[in-house]
Amino acid sequence: MRITENRYGKSGVRVARVVRHQDRHEMHEMTVAIQIEGDFDSSYSEGDNSKVLPTDTMKNTVYAFAAGPEAAQPESFALLLARHFVSTQPQVHRASVEVQCQPWQRNGRFSFSGSGPLRRTASVTAEGASETVEAGIADYLLLKTTGSAFAGFVKDSYTTLAETQDRLFATSLDARWRYRGEDISMDTNWWDTSWHAVMKLLTETFAEHESKSVQHTLYAMGEAVLAECDHVSRIHLTMPNKHYLPVDLRPFGLSNANEVFVPTDEPHGLIEAVLEQ
Amino acid sequence: MRITENRYGKSGVRVARVVRHQDRHEMHEMTVAIQIEGDFDSSYSEGDNSKVLPTDTMKNTVYAFAAGPEAAQPESFALLLARHFVSTQPQVHRASVEVQCQPWQRNGRFSFSGSGPLRRTASVTAEGASETVEAGIADYLLLKTTGSAFAGFVKDSYTTLAETQDRLFATSLDARWRYRGEDISMDTNWWDTSWHAVMKLLTETFAEHESKSVQHTLYAMGEAVLAECDHVSRIHLTMPNKHYLPVDLRPFGLSNANEVFVPTDEPHGLIEAVLEQ
Amino acid sequence: MRITENRYGKSGVRVARVVRHQDRHEMHEMTVAIQIEGDFDSSYSEGDNSKVLPTDTMKNTVYAFAAGPEAAQPESFALLLARHFVSTQPQVHRASVEVQCQPWQRNGRFSFSGSGPLRRTASVTAEGASETVEAGIADYLLLKTTGSAFAGFVKDSYTTLAETQDRLFATSLDARWRYRGEDISMDTNWWDTSWHAVMKLLTETFAEHESKSVQHTLYAMGEAVLAECDHVSRIHLTMPNKHYLPVDLRPFGLSNANEVFVPTDEPHGLIEAVLEQ
Amino acid sequence: MRITENRYGKSGVRVARVVRHQDRHEMHEMTVAIQIEGDFDSSYSEGDNSKVLPTDTMKNTVYAFAAGPEAAQPESFALLLARHFVSTQPQVHRASVEVQCQPWQRNGRFSFSGSGPLRRTASVTAEGASETVEAGIADYLLLKTTGSAFAGFVKDSYTTLAETQDRLFATSLDARWRYRGEDISMDTNWWDTSWHAVMKLLTETFAEHESKSVQHTLYAMGEAVLAECDHVSRIHLTMPNKHYLPVDLRPFGLSNANEVFVPTDEPHGLIEAVLEQ
Repeated sequence: MRITENRYGKSGVRVARVVRHQDRHEMHEMTVAIQIEGDFDSSYSEGDNSKVLPTDTMKNTVYAFAAGPEAAQPESFALLLARHFVSTQPQVHRASVEVQCQPWQRNGRFSFSGSGPLRRTASVTAEGASETVEAGIADYLLLKTTGSAFAGFVKDSYTTLAETQDRLFATSLDARWRYRGEDISMDTNWWDTSWHAVMKLLTETFAEHESKSVQHTLYAMGEAVLAECDHVSRIHLTMPNKHYLPVDLRPFGLSNANEVFVPTDEPHGLIEAVLEQ
Repeated sequence: MRITENRYGKSGVRVARVVRHQDRHEMHEMTVAIQIEGDFDSSYSEGDNSKVLPTDTMKNTVYAFAAGPEAAQPESFALLLARHFVSTQPQVHRASVEVQCQPWQRNGRFSFSGSGPLRRTASVTAEGASETVEAGIADYLLLKTTGSAFAGFVKDSYTTLAETQDRLFATSLDARWRYRGEDISMDTNWWDTSWHAVMKLLTETFAEHESKSVQHTLYAMGEAVLAECDHVSRIHLTMPNKHYLPVDLRPFGLSNANEVFVPTDEPHGLIEAVLEQ
Repeated sequence: MRITENRYGKSGVRVARVVRHQDRHEMHEMTVAIQIEGDFDSSYSEGDNSKVLPTDTMKNTVYAFAAGPEAAQPESFALLLARHFVSTQPQVHRASVEVQCQPWQRNGRFSFSGSGPLRRTASVTAEGASETVEAGIADYLLLKTTGSAFAGFVKDSYTTLAETQDRLFATSLDARWRYRGEDISMDTNWWDTSWHAVMKLLTETFAEHESKSVQHTLYAMGEAVLAECDHVSRIHLTMPNKHYLPVDLRPFGLSNANEVFVPTDEPHGLIEAVLEQ
Repeated sequence: MRITENRYGKSGVRVARVVRHQDRHEMHEMTVAIQIEGDFDSSYSEGDNSKVLPTDTMKNTVYAFAAGPEAAQPESFALLLARHFVSTQPQVHRASVEVQCQPWQRNGRFSFSGSGPLRRTASVTAEGASETVEAGIADYLLLKTTGSAFAGFVKDSYTTLAETQDRLFATSLDARWRYRGEDISMDTNWWDTSWHAVMKLLTETFAEHESKSVQHTLYAMGEAVLAECDHVSRIHLTMPNKHYLPVDLRPFGLSNANEVFVPTDEPHGLIEAVLEQ
């Protein structure tokens, strides 16, 4: 018997950082997950903890590092943490850090309102000097009321779906895009600007695309990002098809001119692809 | 043995209504819950269904009424439904309708992004000709980074909390306010304008109040609404105290100038009050 | 303007108590919510905290009292806590304590597995010497595959539901029953025995009743408890109708002999009643 | 630009199957997710749906196949579905089917109560004639009140955790184990017996192991399964460390003999490994 994979770490580490400028405060709230891999077989097979950095220590490290300026952006914060674990613990061969941001929108100089369910994400892997940085979004709800068709598909003996030239198209986008290695730095402004540039492309392409299927629009969104953003080398898009079913109002003496729908959560389509250049 | 209370209805009725103008579409998505009370004892004690309107019929009624213009605002939609059940089914003495709106923000003429967790709500009760309309919000996350103290409280043998003059104050506001009966109408613009006026007062008062406690700020928020909005007669505010705990960074050789916090979900304070004028 | 209602307290206070016998351990895990009412108007209107017991102190009190033997049952634990707040803080006129138990089933002498979603609950209100104790259950999933009809109901112009003599009946029972005042004590065995007796009646009656509607079965279940349990004076039952919809398999050349269903969460019927003797 | 990965399918397909024997009924409730991969690039890049089997058809296939005897066990049901998609649609190179079972425990001949959060799972991948079957469990809550230590670990400048010889150990086990290819069949009894045999080993090993860490116990559990079950070739175990923190009762004049704990959900440790033989 052998151990063919193993990793461990701390998840759900919530931390908030307030930056107190004279005239206004910044509010950064994040949830961090850390996973490390390395020379840990004996901890499993023998209960030998001599190389085990406790996950409680990882949590403390998140709190301590939150005091630094890198905590203002999830990419730089994740980088700082991942580098720490691979550089200070020789038995650690690989450290992965995921950060999810709780979005707070400014209401006043010292006051904010929470929004969501969309969360900005960052994911960093450090393996010696080799580092990968992916930014992303999770649970970004998008809907369009026209410009979406689905026709010309395969029919078999279990097919009952009608073809349509005009349906509601709703999704909850998860996206992760990878930055080229030469762009990795601690420049927090760069990370922020880059994230917003990608988000703008994803949002606008979804709105404007004449969709023949979820697959078709997913591709167009990824293509827009790779075409416009030279510093992005790869994008992974996951798009559920959150069905809005037209209601048959005829039993009640009414017609439904594509106006009344039942939103459903399950079952849902689920489409994903990775695009690279 | 006797039945001292009973009610039944349909919950979780999700419906979406698209209004298709030439140059742009409106998107309205709601979740409706209906409860009726009346002469139903025999359905419980005898299994006599002769007066029972099926909850499936209530669901269909929601779908059918969603085709009308009242569906553009939750208050008018709830009113329409509540009036229908008390006026068409004589055994129904009271109908209560709750509507929660899924917020969709416009991204383009035909395209939207979802936001939350805040939801606009409406709650209508019809009892013969007597009607009550309450508007509200649920899960409105608010946070301020200064302007919040908590001191001068009771100490007993279980008290360990330190007094503070400057803490983070975060809450998830639930509010319901009642409109005066003379304002009840099917004027959808009026409902929309009134809701936004109350929301602006709640948001600004939270931001600007010099808080001595959650109770103190809750009262100020309700007072602002009752003072400014003549058409509101009553407001019910519920405010959890979502604690952000300052982290002790001294074990790591660092100080924490009120900058690094651990956000927690549980346990949480929970404060509520009803104000009337 | 006046405050017409107010209360505050601490919710989501989780605590676990291990009782370490020589040969086996007991595991009790609870989530506690405390709410108090009383002479607190000035804390709202003036920010005067001189009568305010901090909710953090309530949390500490839960932890401290968890060390006592009363923590072995939710009713006695809630009683102990409610009595403490009304008896030690004269400004408190009423204290309400809700306890939910996380069920742990024994796997070994010192080992357990968690179950659910059913949770045992207790709810105590103390108002001076007047005390009310309600035990209950939350999220008790029950399903029967036959013995359930729904027919003879009202039809209107929105009715499309077919009558049925044999449907699946699934619910998620919430029940709360009130014990007579003379039975209120710190006898933990009594509370445990009484809870299990009621649960047995609810479970068996659901299984055996020939149901004409959810209302009909709800009544039978409450009637069984009030008839058999002299120490119960009142029971409040809430039963969603969790619909299992038969699938039309004819498009696929198959018949469905009441065997294949789609379980749905929304929309759902919701039926409730209070029975007293 | 190129598509380097893509897949699509239907998730959240809920279906219930009642088997109606004369004297008792069986209740099977499952949630199915299907994903297919193959020759689909043109659907993304061109919006060409000519090879796209709609996800709605996949849903219908689940309903239709639920009428067959294979639906009595998740492994055989998943196999049937996966084989269908690869054998009837030549453009499909790979089909993956995940099934999660909602556990219903028998209360009577025709009556059941739901339990959880534990769910039995099955996961099948078909790639031409090559098939992989994994059975598993999700969200299996396990807790032991003694027999768990954590000491001898690495200390760095962020470590504050004290060593302990006796802590509470709680987890929510996710496990997936792979059966050898020669055991793959439609024998529903075999799947059921095998699943229960693995569950018994996991449960007993957790209860009896003298744990030096979560890693140590995870390994012992996997080792027990691989040693005892010849038909299992691989097991993947994921175990969060759900921390129960001892409460310091000294401020209240009490001692805590390892009896009173605060259960916490976040942050939590997260340990995983794959064992193979």
